[in-house]
Amino acid sequence: MLSPLYQKMISGKSVIRELSEYATARGRQIGYENVFDFSLGNPSVPVPQAFTDACVRLLTEGDPHLVHGYSPTAGIPQVKDAIAASLNRRFGMNYTGADIFPAIGAAGALAHAFRLVCQPHDEIVTFAPYFSEYNPYVELADYKLTVVPADTKAFQIDFEKFAAIMNPNVTAILINTPNNPSGAVYTAETLTELARILTEKSQEYGHEIWLISDEPYREIVFDGKTCPYVSKFYANTISCYSFSKSLSIPGGRIGYVAVNPACGKSAMMVQMCGQISRGIGHNCPTALMQLAVAECVDLTADLSVYETNRNLLYEALTDLGFSVVKPDGTFYIFPQSLEEDAVAFCKKALAYDLVFVPGNGFACPGHFRMAYCIDTEKVERSIPALKKFVEAEYRN
Amino acid sequence: MLSPLYQKMISGKSVIRELSEYATARGRQIGYENVFDFSLGNPSVPVPQAFTDACVRLLTEGDPHLVHGYSPTAGIPQVKDAIAASLNRRFGMNYTGADIFPAIGAAGALAHAFRLVCQPHDEIVTFAPYFSEYNPYVELADYKLTVVPADTKAFQIDFEKFAAIMNPNVTAILINTPNNPSGAVYTAETLTELARILTEKSQEYGHEIWLISDEPYREIVFDGKTCPYVSKFYANTISCYSFSKSLSIPGGRIGYVAVNPACGKSAMMVQMCGQISRGIGHNCPTALMQLAVAECVDLTADLSVYETNRNLLYEALTDLGFSVVKPDGTFYIFPQSLEEDAVAFCKKALAYDLVFVPGNGFACPGHFRMAYCIDTEKVERSIPALKKFVEAEYRN
Repeated sequence: MLSPLYQKMISGKSVIRELSEYATARGRQIGYENVFDFSLGNPSVPVPQAFTDACVRLLTEGDPHLVHGYSPTAGIPQVKDAIAASLNRRFGMNYTGADIFPAIGAAGALAHAFRLVCQPHDEIVTFAPYFSEYNPYVELADYKLTVVPADTKAFQIDFEKFAAIMNPNVTAILINTPNNPSGAVYTAETLTELARILTEKSQEYGHEIWLISDEPYREIVFDGKTCPYVSKFYANTISCYSFSKSLSIPGGRIGYVAVNPACGKSAMMVQMCGQISRGIGHNCPTALMQLAVAECVDLTADLSVYETNRNLLYEALTDLGFSVVKPDGTFYIFPQSLEEDAVAFCKKALAYDLVFVPGNGFACPGHFRMAYCIDTEKVERSIPALKKFVEAEYRN
Repeated sequence: MLSPLYQKMISGKSVIRELSEYATARGRQIGYENVFDFSLGNPSVPVPQAFTDACVRLLTEGDPHLVHGYSPTAGIPQVKDAIAASLNRRFGMNYTGADIFPAIGAAGALAHAFRLVCQPHDEIVTFAPYFSEYNPYVELADYKLTVVPADTKAFQIDFEKFAAIMNPNVTAILINTPNNPSGAVYTAETLTELARILTEKSQEYGHEIWLISDEPYREIVFDGKTCPYVSKFYANTISCYSFSKSLSIPGGRIGYVAVNPACGKSAMMVQMCGQISRGIGHNCPTALMQLAVAECVDLTADLSVYETNRNLLYEALTDLGFSVVKPDGTFYIFPQSLEEDAVAFCKKALAYDLVFVPGNGFACPGHFRMAYCIDTEKVERSIPALKKFVEAEYRN
């Protein structure tokens, strides 16, 4: 008998995927360049030449045993060292290679992080709006995801609502800053207060509460700012990173888990990750990708286009009367919809070839997400369509 | 609190890894060329130039969206098609791309296969001798692994012992042919009889019994033979493949699940694999690796060295009086140890710088595994050491 669980899941199609499929089909009718597809968070900027060069050099001149052979379960030592050194240099941390576990993107990293600190039926708390894939990530591993309602004013943390939800079954807090879908970056104040509460609650409950920080957008921050490094604020932090967005290589499937050594057992936890891998069929990321990112660990693709697009859209949206929190990072913006039912709003937008994702899937109804990892030229062309949509549907 | 399960696992070190670490340490003392390290199944033959060329061409001339972008959850369509066409051509199957799910090596493929057809506490039956990693693969996913004792005469299947073990809780049978550690290849007769029993038992129990075929060594078969293609014998077969051994790229982490379309629901099962991925953080194999193997799908590395090594060792071992089944494939040989306690035997061998793995970990005590994926020159040099060991320890 086939697993009824997974059989049932295939009938429940993802809203984002349905919208993206609609956009592709519509593109076949009118040309994809005429569909203003803001549905998918697929990085659009070119991969840095240095990354391609590193891959080619490794393939043609590298040690074949290193490039093509099995890598150690806990990752290639020099890769781990390079990642640790970069984090130390950039964020003033004290990692060694032993604290780093290369993983298959942020999804692979999170799969390990949850299993490190949770046992079946434990509760993981996250904050709306949040990436909807957290549901299957957590629930299929047999943990429970509890969601704190959004602070829709600034997309920071509503600490009152957080306090109301906390309970002794909570073993981990899952945050995502810079945030998908809001584009918000948690401030140092937010992270300080979060750490204070977690320290207090750990003592109250008599067990550790781990902070799992999902940070694939860490490098995409605007206005010359940098993202406060979460792990600096709280010793029991597990950072989950992906190079997908910073190097524009989501197909590379490469990221890592970094355990804050201040927790006192980081090296053991990385060894535990190796054991977790055996149960989930993870093994290591592709050796070539490990070695190539190690050579590009301080680089990013030219991410400036995202800021340009953010500026264009924020201005256009506010001009048109949208209520919107200005994103400080990522390539998402998350305005309020012009009617309460964001699904209805997004459906109407389709008639103007504008493809948005309703906030409902991010546990934040009344909002919609625009992913602006697309050409600036297309963002510019979308603005008249947006204006036409708003005026025709909401100004009469 | 950290997971006690995974915490406990790190203290239980793998015997193979311990032996391999011993060999490495000893190598630092006397030069690794002087350690006859038969412990690790790490392919040693060069990667085909065509594979390297395909990677470089894709990186420098390929469509960046394809090479670096997210691939669809169920794999890149043209890659799936290429794999299906190759299997059809070579084994007379009727796969379409929809029946193929690219996975992160055989470990990733197996992780999906188990979850497709089992529910918690279901029983998976395998046959000794077997790859010891099956234990964590199965048990960490919350299924039960039941082992049929070995047919030590030929390392085929002892059907009497199999019949004694079968029961209605069994939902899957896991086989590995060509076999690690014995090197045996299941004959058409064995597979026909296995299929007959599974068909009969499915009817008797009133539920499907799935055959999960772990076949990373499928291409390494000697004496001009080919390995009978398991899925030809039984409709409800899920083949789990890895390119690690055939292309000598275990670091590439690329393989696939192929579901026999004769089962009537193969395309749905591949869609279910996409859902399983969400829970285990698997996502897709690296896009570059998917695309590169698709271009090399009918190629192998020059695997002839393994046959040369098999011949040398089989002759030397029989000359020295070992009782040994001649391997028809893989790069392993699995002789009886010269004393009942294979662990003691392997420990004594270390004094002669011969590193073997006792059969106990493969659920087949009284035997030891030699992995001869090493240079022929080293195999030749090992024979006098083997002779000296046997004569000094067992001939007086």
